[in-house]
Amino acid sequence: MMKTGFGHLSDLYRDELLNNVIPFWEKHSCDMELGGYFTCLDRDGKVYDTDKFVWLQGRQVWMFATLYNNVKKRGRWLDIAESGAKFLSRYGHDTDGNWYFSLTREGKPLIAPYNIFSDCFAAMAFGQMAKATGSKDYADLAINTFNNIILKSDNPKGIYNKNIAGTRPLKGFSLPMILCNLSLEIEHLLDKDVVNKTVERCIYEVTEVFYDKGSGLIMENVKPDGSFSDTFEGRLLNPGHGIEAMWFIMDLAARKNDKSLAEKAVKITLDILDKGWDREFGGIYYFLDISGKPLQQLEWDQKLWWVHIETLISLAKGYYFTGTQDCLTWFDKVHDYTWSHFPDRQYGEWFGYLNRRGEVLLPLKGGKWKGCFHIPRGLYQVWKTFEKL
Amino acid sequence: MMKTGFGHLSDLYRDELLNNVIPFWEKHSCDMELGGYFTCLDRDGKVYDTDKFVWLQGRQVWMFATLYNNVKKRGRWLDIAESGAKFLSRYGHDTDGNWYFSLTREGKPLIAPYNIFSDCFAAMAFGQMAKATGSKDYADLAINTFNNIILKSDNPKGIYNKNIAGTRPLKGFSLPMILCNLSLEIEHLLDKDVVNKTVERCIYEVTEVFYDKGSGLIMENVKPDGSFSDTFEGRLLNPGHGIEAMWFIMDLAARKNDKSLAEKAVKITLDILDKGWDREFGGIYYFLDISGKPLQQLEWDQKLWWVHIETLISLAKGYYFTGTQDCLTWFDKVHDYTWSHFPDRQYGEWFGYLNRRGEVLLPLKGGKWKGCFHIPRGLYQVWKTFEKL
Repeated sequence: MMKTGFGHLSDLYRDELLNNVIPFWEKHSCDMELGGYFTCLDRDGKVYDTDKFVWLQGRQVWMFATLYNNVKKRGRWLDIAESGAKFLSRYGHDTDGNWYFSLTREGKPLIAPYNIFSDCFAAMAFGQMAKATGSKDYADLAINTFNNIILKSDNPKGIYNKNIAGTRPLKGFSLPMILCNLSLEIEHLLDKDVVNKTVERCIYEVTEVFYDKGSGLIMENVKPDGSFSDTFEGRLLNPGHGIEAMWFIMDLAARKNDKSLAEKAVKITLDILDKGWDREFGGIYYFLDISGKPLQQLEWDQKLWWVHIETLISLAKGYYFTGTQDCLTWFDKVHDYTWSHFPDRQYGEWFGYLNRRGEVLLPLKGGKWKGCFHIPRGLYQVWKTFEKL
Repeated sequence: MMKTGFGHLSDLYRDELLNNVIPFWEKHSCDMELGGYFTCLDRDGKVYDTDKFVWLQGRQVWMFATLYNNVKKRGRWLDIAESGAKFLSRYGHDTDGNWYFSLTREGKPLIAPYNIFSDCFAAMAFGQMAKATGSKDYADLAINTFNNIILKSDNPKGIYNKNIAGTRPLKGFSLPMILCNLSLEIEHLLDKDVVNKTVERCIYEVTEVFYDKGSGLIMENVKPDGSFSDTFEGRLLNPGHGIEAMWFIMDLAARKNDKSLAEKAVKITLDILDKGWDREFGGIYYFLDISGKPLQQLEWDQKLWWVHIETLISLAKGYYFTGTQDCLTWFDKVHDYTWSHFPDRQYGEWFGYLNRRGEVLLPLKGGKWKGCFHIPRGLYQVWKTFEKL
C-alpha cells in the first residue's frame, strides 16, 4: 500500500465494488418473478437453490439501499432494494413481529424465528429504506423491530433456547456487538436518549465485559458477571468477530470524539490479529480456543471471506483514526492475502470458503450465510476511508 | 488382507481393541470421584473438559457392558459400566423420561432433551446392563426409554423443532436406521411381536424409502412419500451413515435368513463407497451433495474415524454373509487408509478428525461426539467376523 499510495488503493476498492461485486449480484440474484433475492449462487452465478434466508435478504436490501443513499441515486439500485423490502415486509415476520430464519422462494415460512440476527438485519434494511424512500411504513418496521430486539435481548433465542436455565448462564458477544452498529444505522429513527443509552451500554459490554484484560482478546461468551468460563463456549475465540466489532467501536469513538477509545479498539484489533494469524499458511483462523484446547468447531482452521474483509476495514479505519503504523503494516499483509486468494477473476465476485491452505473449499459465491453484504460493505468502507487520507 | 489371511487380521483387530483402545479409556476416562466418564480427552489422555454428553455416557456404558457380556466376565469392565449406568440413571433424564443432551461433571442438566439419540444410546446402555446384571431396574429403564422413543418418533425434536409445520415436511434417515440396531440390541427385553414389527418397518424404511433407486445411494432426508426433495437437506449424502446402516441390515438379514436382503445391503455399501471415496487423497468424504451442488457443511471433505471403521465392518460382514469379492478388494483399500492414518502409535487410541489430505485436524482422542464407541465396537465386530472365516 505504502508503495502504491492511498489514492490508488481507494480506487482499487471502489472499482472492485462498482465494476465486479455489485454487478454480479445485480445480474444473478434478483428474483424478478417473485421478489426478493436468490443468494445460493454457484461459482458462475447460476442459482443452485431457491430458499430465502432472512439474514441475507435483509442484508442485501440494506446494501442496495445504502449504495443508493451514499454512493449514487441510481434508480436500479433502489428498485433492487425495494424488491427485497417488499418481499420481507410481506413474508418475513410472524404476527408478533419476530423475523423468521428462512422462507421458501414463494415466501412461506420454513424455519422459525429462533435467531435474533434475522431481526437485526431486517431493522438495518428498513432503516436504510426509510432513508431512501421517506416511507413511514418502512420507518415503523425498523423502529418496531428494534424495540422488539431490545425486549428479547435478555434471552434472544426465547423458546428455542436449549440451555437448561440456571445451570450455566453465559452471555454472548454477538448481540451487544451488533447493537453497536445497528443503533447508529437507525439513529435517524430513534429517540436521541435511546441511541445514547444503547451506544454507551454496547461500548461498555464490548470493551470491558467481553474484553479479556489478561490476553487482550475478545471472548465470545462470558459469565453474567463478565468473568471467564472454562468451558467450550467460554474458551471460544472468533477472531474475525472481535476484529469486526472494533471498527464499529472506532466509528462510535469518532462520534464521541473519544481518542482513547479509538486507540483501545486499535490495540485490540492488533492483538486479536496477532493471535488469529496463521503463521504457517497465512490468513486468519475462523475459531480458536483461548487455552489451545481442541475445539468443537470442525471448521476452525478455515479462511473465510468475511473475516478477512472485516479485518481490512478495522485496519484501514484504525490507521485513519489513530495513525498507528502497525495498522498499515498489517493492512499490507492482510490485503495481499485477501486479494490473492478470494477474488474469482474468471467468473467475478469472491470465493467465500477456503481451507487452511487457502485452497477453495466450496466454489459458491453465495449460500446460506454468504450473500451480498460483507464484501461490498467492506469494499465501500475501505474505499471511503482511504479516500479521506 | 488376502496377503495376510483372516486369522492374522482377526488377531490384529482383537489386539488393537484389547491392548490399545480399551485400556486407554479404562485409564483416562473414569471419573472416580463423581461417577460417569470424562470423554474430552487430549491426545495423551489428559482431561481437557469435564462436561458429560449423554450420547457418549450411554455409549461407553454399552461398550463396557458388551465387552463384559460377550468377551470376558472381567469385574473391572462391569464396574466401569456400572459407574456410568448409575450416573446416567440418576442424572441423565427428566421426570418424563426424556434424556438430556449434556450434563455438568456433577450431573446437573446443561442442554435440554432435544436429541432423540440420547434416548437411543441410553436404551442400548441399559439393555446391556440388564443382560450383565439381571437388574430389573435397568431392564425397565431400557424398556421405558424404548417405548418413549417410539412415541416420539414422528416428531423426534418435539418443541425444539425449528421447522415451521407443513411448509416442507421431510423425514430423516437417522431414526429408522438406529432403530434397526436398537431393536435387536434390546430384543431380550421386548415383546416378540414388537421386535418383529419394528424390524420389518425399519428394513422397509432403510432399503426402500431412503434408498434412491436411480443412484443406488441412501438419502439422508426424503419427502414423507419417500420421494426426492431438491433442497439442501434432500440432496444431502452422508456416506458413512448409509454404509453403517448396511451392516445393521446385514445382521437383520442373517436373523431372517434372507440372502437377497444381505446382497442388497452389500450392493448399497459398494455403491455408496464408490461415490464417497476421495480419489485424489484417499479416504471417505463426510458429506456430499447428490447433485454436486455446494454443501452447507463446511466439514464436508474431512475424514472421520467413525466413517472409516463403520465401513470396515460393513465390508467384512458383506464378505462374510455373501462372499462378494469386491468387499475384500475395498476392505484392503479402506483398511490400509484407516490403519495408516487414524491410530496414534505415540499416545494410543485413534485420532478422530483428519482434514481432506489425511492430516490430523484436531488432536483429541475424545470430545463432544467422539467417545468410547465406534472404534472399539468396530474392532470388536471385525475381529469376530474374521474369526468366523
